[in-house]
Amino acid sequence: MVGRAGGQARAAVVGTGLIGGSVLLRLRDAGLDVAGWDPDPTTRRYAREQGVACPDAVEEAVAGRDVVFLCGPLPTLPETLSRVAGATDDGCVLTDVGSTKAEVAASAAAQGLGHRFVPGHPMAGADRAGVASATPALLDGAAWVLCPGPTGMMAFRRLAALIIDVFRARVVPMSAPEHDAVAALSSHVPHLLAGALAGAVQRAALRDAVLALAAGSFSDGTRVAGGPPERTANMLLGNRGQVLSELAAVRSFLDGLTDALRDGDATTLTAHLGEARTARLALHGRAFSTHHRQFPATVDHEGELAYLRELGAAGGHLTGCRVDGGGVTYTGHLPMVAEAA
Amino acid sequence: MVGRAGGQARAAVVGTGLIGGSVLLRLRDAGLDVAGWDPDPTTRRYAREQGVACPDAVEEAVAGRDVVFLCGPLPTLPETLSRVAGATDDGCVLTDVGSTKAEVAASAAAQGLGHRFVPGHPMAGADRAGVASATPALLDGAAWVLCPGPTGMMAFRRLAALIIDVFRARVVPMSAPEHDAVAALSSHVPHLLAGALAGAVQRAALRDAVLALAAGSFSDGTRVAGGPPERTANMLLGNRGQVLSELAAVRSFLDGLTDALRDGDATTLTAHLGEARTARLALHGRAFSTHHRQFPATVDHEGELAYLRELGAAGGHLTGCRVDGGGVTYTGHLPMVAEAA
Repeated sequence: MVGRAGGQARAAVVGTGLIGGSVLLRLRDAGLDVAGWDPDPTTRRYAREQGVACPDAVEEAVAGRDVVFLCGPLPTLPETLSRVAGATDDGCVLTDVGSTKAEVAASAAAQGLGHRFVPGHPMAGADRAGVASATPALLDGAAWVLCPGPTGMMAFRRLAALIIDVFRARVVPMSAPEHDAVAALSSHVPHLLAGALAGAVQRAALRDAVLALAAGSFSDGTRVAGGPPERTANMLLGNRGQVLSELAAVRSFLDGLTDALRDGDATTLTAHLGEARTARLALHGRAFSTHHRQFPATVDHEGELAYLRELGAAGGHLTGCRVDGGGVTYTGHLPMVAEAA
Repeated sequence: MVGRAGGQARAAVVGTGLIGGSVLLRLRDAGLDVAGWDPDPTTRRYAREQGVACPDAVEEAVAGRDVVFLCGPLPTLPETLSRVAGATDDGCVLTDVGSTKAEVAASAAAQGLGHRFVPGHPMAGADRAGVASATPALLDGAAWVLCPGPTGMMAFRRLAALIIDVFRARVVPMSAPEHDAVAALSSHVPHLLAGALAGAVQRAALRDAVLALAAGSFSDGTRVAGGPPERTANMLLGNRGQVLSELAAVRSFLDGLTDALRDGDATTLTAHLGEARTARLALHGRAFSTHHRQFPATVDHEGELAYLRELGAAGGHLTGCRVDGGGVTYTGHLPMVAEAA
């Protein structure tokens, strides 16, 4: 765990809305010495009412901490990172919870913070917002992406150990660009498709009849089109390159389906739909194998970094990270090749 | 209600799988004299075990009936229609429950059955299949499309009265081509988009990582891609022209979203997403106004047909159809213009 010899870690959370507030309450419940901060005075007051220290100055909240979670909105992160880095020791681990990772990782590297900033992205529902919806259980057992970099392996180990210990997280190690490519397919492109379907219906002459006869497929396929347009637009724009690239792949598959349909080619159409079905069935039907990997206390972490990134890219995750005498032992899980039929 | 003077209607169901079996059991529970038939001997035996008459010959099941529901698969309908028509009186109303309507309507017209065949499509979940999943409650309160034709108004009235009475159905009157255009957007195109998304992930280098990090948007947006490929392919091919046409409208909206994203145009992107959101919010938030309309017992039903088709095209439905002295009184419901914000 992140921390000082013989004691629990001291942690801070900057930006205590839904995610940050939930992180804060969970760390507090786990017995850590925590402090929060938010730019909004009402939110700070609310945190104090929960019994959590929440000073008016961010510098005061983060000073002397071992780990700081940056949980504010994406566009604010570079500036917050710089401010918090200046107010903490060089041994303090910094991480964030934003939904895209390449930009903030580049910003941290440009600020010379690659050795102690570990980009992060816990997977949590975003149907609600605000500190009043925060709960210690929100991120319990969540898949939690962390992006280890070549100079930041020690910080990664400490942070991974902490969030596994406190949140029972499944840590998914990935490079920042790979995370963003994955997020494009697993979340951002689905938002575009939902918007296109709902938008076409909004413009249709028979709009009201379509809504009257909407089947489960339509209701499911447009659910996220009901979210706030500004938030969805920011999310898409924050990962523009990867979204456009993965959308092209989806359009290409759609072209194949459309061509087969236009040609009346039932065999090809069924084959394409069968290919799609394989991915869908694997969503809930995968079994995992467990392994342990040890890495020594060396200066060169190339092998360790390669192991971690390969694990995440293969759909795997960590549930154990034990740092011992300078070395580390990971408990890893990989999806097995055989899939539910 | 369909029926003879002074008595309950006598009904038959041909094809007693999930939908047909549920229709059969519900008619039986409502006190009608019913008989079923299915090409599969095991299914016939199962129906008999439920206490329903299920003779081995379809002609025997339908002879002397006032109404026959044809519930077999789409490709079998033209032949079944011809066979059942030949074994029933000219006053017997025939209907089906297939998911597309233009083809079967044309087939009935070509067979000279327009005066007594009323194309139908009850909206029911199709996650399950087979008679063992059939229940009397499956279609309770369902939206149920009926397609009245110019020569079949008397048959429409009798059938609408029956299914409102027995199933508490919301009857949605539409022309067959309009039904198929609506079904393309409300069900068929969503299946294509789900297939394209899941299919692109299946081909992605990071497939397993995408599945590991799949958000609710991905899970919702691919749900129907888990269905049987053959069934989905048949459904799409059965409505090919309308599906391709409505898919083009969805692609066009997607192009607008993509252009705004590529240009980094947050204002336009947000506006398009806001347009999509309007349709999505209207899906569950609509209020309806109620009205009554009477039509006399005339030979010319042009006004009545126009009223019914306009009602369905506007997203409305019927919950009452009272036939009295040759005239009819409909209880209709229309979505109100003000929408949930």
